[in-house]
Amino acid sequence: MATLWLLSLLTMVLGLAIAGPVPPSKPTSARTGCHIGIFQSVSQWELGVFKKVKDALEELLLQKDIRCSTNPFPRSRKLGQLQAQERPKALQAELALTLKVLESMTDSALVPILEQPLHTLRHIHSQLQACTQPQPTAEPRPLSRRLSRWLHRLQEAQRKETPGCLEASVTFNLFRLLTRDLKCVASGDQCV
Amino acid sequence: MATLWLLSLLTMVLGLAIAGPVPPSKPTSARTGCHIGIFQSVSQWELGVFKKVKDALEELLLQKDIRCSTNPFPRSRKLGQLQAQERPKALQAELALTLKVLESMTDSALVPILEQPLHTLRHIHSQLQACTQPQPTAEPRPLSRRLSRWLHRLQEAQRKETPGCLEASVTFNLFRLLTRDLKCVASGDQCV
Repeated sequence: MATLWLLSLLTMVLGLAIAGPVPPSKPTSARTGCHIGIFQSVSQWELGVFKKVKDALEELLLQKDIRCSTNPFPRSRKLGQLQAQERPKALQAELALTLKVLESMTDSALVPILEQPLHTLRHIHSQLQACTQPQPTAEPRPLSRRLSRWLHRLQEAQRKETPGCLEASVTFNLFRLLTRDLKCVASGDQCV
Repeated sequence: MATLWLLSLLTMVLGLAIAGPVPPSKPTSARTGCHIGIFQSVSQWELGVFKKVKDALEELLLQKDIRCSTNPFPRSRKLGQLQAQERPKALQAELALTLKVLESMTDSALVPILEQPLHTLRHIHSQLQACTQPQPTAEPRPLSRRLSRWLHRLQEAQRKETPGCLEASVTFNLFRLLTRDLKCVASGDQCV
């Protein structure tokens, strides 16, 4: 398992090292060090590791009250509804909440199996940061109303919802984040 | 979608019609009309339909208190721990509870997408019934202690747990039932 994980990490690092300039259609093409295009698909092996985590999280959720006043990640909300250049920021906020919630889980059965998925999520998060850093020469753009609402919803959830609600929401959203949302950002203008 | 569903059903019916005698290694070989061997794998398309249902169920769960006093389907409990001839009965009980819980869900957004998965689950359940019917000439066998505990746990869950707990447990167990557990029963002695 450790060998597979090292191989997976090595593939990612090599992928980054050999990644050429991102095609012009990508929203992140002008950013130095922004290589989110490599995440157009997550390997089946990597998804299998997350599946194991999701199973363990679900088992723990049965011991909790998960009731939410609002769903932080409603299924109907899709990154494709935002402008292409806004999507990395929205995904980054989604990922930041996911990391915060998962990092705060200290159940002894969960900690060892969370290690590698957390590493992967942090790696994607750092890539997104490189894509959302404002260019030194560029004028700061005001956020669109839609993106502001998107970010506000996540901030409010962190402030208002119970740990049980946040853990359940993050658990249920994990595969949408890793497949649908990440793929959408990685495919730039091609995401509809 | 309806066409695909009809095609899938037709494939199942044809599968049943052309299914030859089950190999002697299967625990259900002596039963007339017992063709559970055809469920060794569920199609990717079928799993996709269940995935859609699971997503919708998860969204609804966020509005509930799902706390359980005991988990009706603990991850650590595996059908392979039972004797081969007992497994269809255990799976049948698991499936009966799953059907009962899903059939009682009346949320308007859920009902149309539940229709086909319920049909599939009922079909598997009826196949299992053919495999667990006592033979007219056979002496009734007493249940093993392990199988009795398995069945008792499911009965107690129905009696004691809240609807929220049962809905969450059934949702979280859905793919284990359709892949791991069904495959185990379908593969007879080969399941370890």
